Amino acid sequence: MTHPEDDLARLVVSCRDRHGIVAAVSGALAELGANIVSSAQHSTDPEDGMFFLRMVFHLEGLKAERARVAERLAAVAEEFGMSWRLTAARERKRTVIFVSKEDHCLFDLLWRWQRDELPMDLVAVVSNHPDHETSVTALGLPYHHIPVTRETKADAERQLLDLFAGKIDLAILARYMQILSPSFLEEIGAPIINIHHSFLPAFVGQNPYLRAYERGVKLIGATAHYATADLDEGPIIEQDVERVSHAHTPDDLTRVGRDIERVVLARAVRWHLEDRVLVHGNRTVVFLA
Amino acid sequence: MTHPEDDLARLVVSCRDRHGIVAAVSGALAELGANIVSSAQHSTDPEDGMFFLRMVFHLEGLKAERARVAERLAAVAEEFGMSWRLTAARERKRTVIFVSKEDHCLFDLLWRWQRDELPMDLVAVVSNHPDHETSVTALGLPYHHIPVTRETKADAERQLLDLFAGKIDLAILARYMQILSPSFLEEIGAPIINIHHSFLPAFVGQNPYLRAYERGVKLIGATAHYATADLDEGPIIEQDVERVSHAHTPDDLTRVGRDIERVVLARAVRWHLEDRVLVHGNRTVVFLA
Amino acid sequence: MTHPEDDLARLVVSCRDRHGIVAAVSGALAELGANIVSSAQHSTDPEDGMFFLRMVFHLEGLKAERARVAERLAAVAEEFGMSWRLTAARERKRTVIFVSKEDHCLFDLLWRWQRDELPMDLVAVVSNHPDHETSVTALGLPYHHIPVTRETKADAERQLLDLFAGKIDLAILARYMQILSPSFLEEIGAPIINIHHSFLPAFVGQNPYLRAYERGVKLIGATAHYATADLDEGPIIEQDVERVSHAHTPDDLTRVGRDIERVVLARAVRWHLEDRVLVHGNRTVVFLA
Amino acid sequence: MTHPEDDLARLVVSCRDRHGIVAAVSGALAELGANIVSSAQHSTDPEDGMFFLRMVFHLEGLKAERARVAERLAAVAEEFGMSWRLTAARERKRTVIFVSKEDHCLFDLLWRWQRDELPMDLVAVVSNHPDHETSVTALGLPYHHIPVTRETKADAERQLLDLFAGKIDLAILARYMQILSPSFLEEIGAPIINIHHSFLPAFVGQNPYLRAYERGVKLIGATAHYATADLDEGPIIEQDVERVSHAHTPDDLTRVGRDIERVVLARAVRWHLEDRVLVHGNRTVVFLA
Repeated sequence: MTHPEDDLARLVVSCRDRHGIVAAVSGALAELGANIVSSAQHSTDPEDGMFFLRMVFHLEGLKAERARVAERLAAVAEEFGMSWRLTAARERKRTVIFVSKEDHCLFDLLWRWQRDELPMDLVAVVSNHPDHETSVTALGLPYHHIPVTRETKADAERQLLDLFAGKIDLAILARYMQILSPSFLEEIGAPIINIHHSFLPAFVGQNPYLRAYERGVKLIGATAHYATADLDEGPIIEQDVERVSHAHTPDDLTRVGRDIERVVLARAVRWHLEDRVLVHGNRTVVFLA
Repeated sequence: MTHPEDDLARLVVSCRDRHGIVAAVSGALAELGANIVSSAQHSTDPEDGMFFLRMVFHLEGLKAERARVAERLAAVAEEFGMSWRLTAARERKRTVIFVSKEDHCLFDLLWRWQRDELPMDLVAVVSNHPDHETSVTALGLPYHHIPVTRETKADAERQLLDLFAGKIDLAILARYMQILSPSFLEEIGAPIINIHHSFLPAFVGQNPYLRAYERGVKLIGATAHYATADLDEGPIIEQDVERVSHAHTPDDLTRVGRDIERVVLARAVRWHLEDRVLVHGNRTVVFLA
Repeated sequence: MTHPEDDLARLVVSCRDRHGIVAAVSGALAELGANIVSSAQHSTDPEDGMFFLRMVFHLEGLKAERARVAERLAAVAEEFGMSWRLTAARERKRTVIFVSKEDHCLFDLLWRWQRDELPMDLVAVVSNHPDHETSVTALGLPYHHIPVTRETKADAERQLLDLFAGKIDLAILARYMQILSPSFLEEIGAPIINIHHSFLPAFVGQNPYLRAYERGVKLIGATAHYATADLDEGPIIEQDVERVSHAHTPDDLTRVGRDIERVVLARAVRWHLEDRVLVHGNRTVVFLA
Repeated sequence: MTHPEDDLARLVVSCRDRHGIVAAVSGALAELGANIVSSAQHSTDPEDGMFFLRMVFHLEGLKAERARVAERLAAVAEEFGMSWRLTAARERKRTVIFVSKEDHCLFDLLWRWQRDELPMDLVAVVSNHPDHETSVTALGLPYHHIPVTRETKADAERQLLDLFAGKIDLAILARYMQILSPSFLEEIGAPIINIHHSFLPAFVGQNPYLRAYERGVKLIGATAHYATADLDEGPIIEQDVERVSHAHTPDDLTRVGRDIERVVLARAVRWHLEDRVLVHGNRTVVFLA
């Protein structure tokens, strides 16, 4: 007997909005004998805007039926000019975590991964520092210590590409304090989620907590976004904030901020792993239900 | 030429979950020539749980087509054993506001109604106090001053029923400090939204801010819910909280709480007016997108 | 018999931090027979940083004793090189509200003023539009309609200065969409609180909600700050945010934002009126307890 | 040369409110040559209410001067009938953590302790389950596995008292799912901080997330409080909430709740360790600045 999750699939669709899309997709799934478990959609404008759809459906014997399902959906997609992606819930995304010295996001992600809060296949941890090697390898995970200096940066990226290009589905920058080159972002062949320690677009760049202190803001925040060639400008997945006061020093802001960063990053990663996040230009559609 | 909103309709459906519901409904709408503008759904359990659906669709010439649409949907509903409701976006719900002395929710609702934030047809304001008569009638609204004492309560409810039973779609208790009898709730023939000045189920009943002070809570809240025969026990539509400290007196809590109450009530009312709230037992499904 | 509030005073102090300040101030007040009702302090650095203090004290027969109190405090201030300010709680700040078309902050402030949530002596409402005249004058308040165009701006500011320079203690820009000139800010002779409809420093300048939409942020905010010659760069008094999603249009953001703006502005104004806000460079110290 | 923290002390005072308290305490500290680094106070009522004060002061050579300081403060305390407590910032509170199966709070506290976010001297971890032994002992901490059944409960408490009574300054119940007897609470001789997984006073007792689901609340919360003989009724130190919707299952609430629990507990523990929390009846005064 198969576990029910074996028969769950996620369909993610985007296309120009027009009449009859939902009827066509849900009709196709009904014909295939699938039961829609959840469905969410968004249109930027019903008159010729962009349309986004995420459906989770259950189909007895999904594995064996997969080719037939894909064929049927391809026909619908052709008709409507859809971009689409079909994932089996059981297929976990191969993920690598990048980290520098600050380890609060790293250990938070590792804890959630161990407790199965993050349905991913964790492949390795990469760092430009040796600090976390013992803790990471104790969990049975490979730890790649790849130092980066101005001179060795190109080499370091080459090593990373040799290790991971084309072999992973997701990279998480869990406070990795190196800027990745545009060519790396292109060649790695997988989306990258970064956590920035400010409420973007405020305090783009270096030392956001110090600058937040100097500006005298009354809330500080963190932002999880897809990394793009423009630093801190990629599509935002999730943000949150916490109240602070004049009594908080820059060190206090850093401490309070750590708690925001790890929760914001974990949410964004989970949503990505569950195929809830669709990118539209520089914005995201996040289907939470 | 008709305004686009004239051609917008909202369909709200609930039934036992089974295969093919979305395909059937969206198929019927496609056949009718309707374009689905937004759609949200929820299932408590795909295996024989309850299924809830809200669709907003656009249909050229909706008014003239309405009977045909209803007939077609009735056939689908019959097949799946659905409860359903079809509303034209243009048809505003006839609403009456009940208030006692505290007027922050009243004036907040009136301001939003004037600025068209709340798409309702405001019929009257009712109060057991005369205080707000001048302000309300200045807006061209009837003001019914119906005092209530222990002795006159039955009479007062009778007067209210004479005025409104069967003639309204919604009643809002905007800090109306009288308990309505079960028979009134039944005979009024319309849903009633109440704002309770605590984070329910904490501090059911009288003087919640004083009791919050005495318990020493660090956040206070407000809850908008449908009124039922069990006081403060009806289905919750919306809640929110604000941080407080030991330095807040009961009067401070009351002041801070007013700001929460009016926002929470306004959200709940708007969602109800837009047919976003579906009741399931003592819980609500609120479709925000 | 005098009302207890007649005998309440607020002392606000700032100076370079050094040993013995609190002992000296509280000692002087004790000698004068005053009872300290509340006290809050902040030091940016006990070693030669800046020190800020706010004390509320009760002194029987304050009015008659005021000169004697001021003399005694002046002696302490001299010794420690203090800037200081003494206010009787009974003396309400003369305040004028500036507004353009959007009236949510205006009516919120007026409601709070009527219900005595804002202890101010409201002198007038000023607008570059005639729209709110009837509502404002109905409350017995003068309404000055002073239109502003590029050509008439200097004239308009002159009129405003003639009306208010030296005659008010506070001006509130409650969504006044005109930029005031540096010379106006100087000549008006009173602090000015502005509400900006973004979470500063994000979205400085025009159309923040549209830009928030385009950037795809997941929270929107509002900021109350003192107006300075640098647009949207003045010391921040209060900020707050609300969660939004991809489903919010720019109009939705504007609607959600209105609720944040009015609460944030009202808090900042109340804190200012109660002498809780001390400016330090481009930051504020806000004593909430 | 001594580290500056060696010379920092915290004075916490409570007494009936009357004239001259601050002058007397700050005067005494000034005479001793101490510099007040921060000070916060609260009065429930200046006319005969309770007065609370927390001062942090710097005194060169604190260790050698301690007896002299205590003597001088004792004289002031005598005069005003004060309860008071003097702590050197360097003296870390001896703390033990109690945990059952759920380990999110445990590992969060351990991570913060390792990173010096929690200034405590962690003595041991106690559990009624063996699960966390390896992880805890790997950090060089003793792990006491003391199983509890209805029959062995008295014995288990006796073992715990033998281990810790009179030897610790604080116990943290980090999701310890056993109810401690009133006699244990008395004999342990140290305050106990518990984390309850609801927004108290809502959902006192068992299974709060399931009951939150059934009640259909729109926010869930967690509460850190001092444990008393009345279950979940002790003085609240900190609370926080997170928004949820109809789409969250009880399991989702449990997952979202874990993130709230660990942050709320960590804040409460840190505040307690820094002597920021004063108990007044069933309420707390928490001095954050």
